[in-house]
Amino acid sequence: MDLTETQISSTAIHDASFLKVYQDQIRLPNGNSSQRLVIRHPGAACVLAITPENQVVLVRQWRYATGQALLEIPAGKLDEGEDPAQCALRELAEETPYSAERVEKILHFYSAPGFCDEVLHVYRAINVQANSTLQPDADEFVETVLYSAEQVRQAIANNEICDAKTLIALQTWLMGQS
Amino acid sequence: MDLTETQISSTAIHDASFLKVYQDQIRLPNGNSSQRLVIRHPGAACVLAITPENQVVLVRQWRYATGQALLEIPAGKLDEGEDPAQCALRELAEETPYSAERVEKILHFYSAPGFCDEVLHVYRAINVQANSTLQPDADEFVETVLYSAEQVRQAIANNEICDAKTLIALQTWLMGQS
Repeated sequence: MDLTETQISSTAIHDASFLKVYQDQIRLPNGNSSQRLVIRHPGAACVLAITPENQVVLVRQWRYATGQALLEIPAGKLDEGEDPAQCALRELAEETPYSAERVEKILHFYSAPGFCDEVLHVYRAINVQANSTLQPDADEFVETVLYSAEQVRQAIANNEICDAKTLIALQTWLMGQS
Repeated sequence: MDLTETQISSTAIHDASFLKVYQDQIRLPNGNSSQRLVIRHPGAACVLAITPENQVVLVRQWRYATGQALLEIPAGKLDEGEDPAQCALRELAEETPYSAERVEKILHFYSAPGFCDEVLHVYRAINVQANSTLQPDADEFVETVLYSAEQVRQAIANNEICDAKTLIALQTWLMGQS
């Protein structure tokens, strides 16, 4: 079955920030036309960083859209033209008092493919080290939290962890432990 | 550390569809003000359905925002006031030739908490049965795909599966198998 939907036209509703919003007119596989509201996002990278003590490096930060602080792996939007691996290394060092020698790709995924093109690139940090310095942006408020595998298991079971990228990365970690 | 960000004002940029877009002026924990573009979504439910032959029920459908067809677990937006469990049962029956007696909650998660309030409610289907009838909407184009646990393991490893809710549900399934 041909599933392809094609663009007929696209109207920008908002393009003044990193998120751009379009109302597109599209052609369905059966020839009918329809509409799609589409959110365009530059993409992001995130990192599963395990310390030498076998704890995962998490960050707690306010998520305005959700009205609460969430526990997540370090992550950030890609700068224009930025290599996602570099972005993952940068975010770990900027958001936490840890850094890594390098990162290896685990996988990528779409966070909300029904309406948004955001791709999350998920990395595993190699040779994680504690740093003495942490210099976040003046307007960035992030706490570092370290969890053992057992604490992660518990935090998934009781749904304390409820962020997509964090669940995917931590499940990957737990599956590698067993 | 107090992480709370509070709303100063909110301006609707788009509110004519199920997705609503707002530009909010906010107060940061240090008293500074900032802006947040926020996408408001009604929430959605999805379902991990395993057949009596121990295969997972997947759907392949075009995801316009991503420009490709993706392999996902059955899912759909919540109708206004709808119980997410009912939505999960309904989507399984509407999108695939399978239905379930009932569903049990696995967890919920935010797909993209950096800019969107969408909550995904993830369920496990109980007593999955094949139906003879499948009557999708005329403008809905969905193929059913059945994968064994081994095929799922492969499809995660080679990143054929790259949808957030599907990765979370399938990793949960695989972790229960070992």
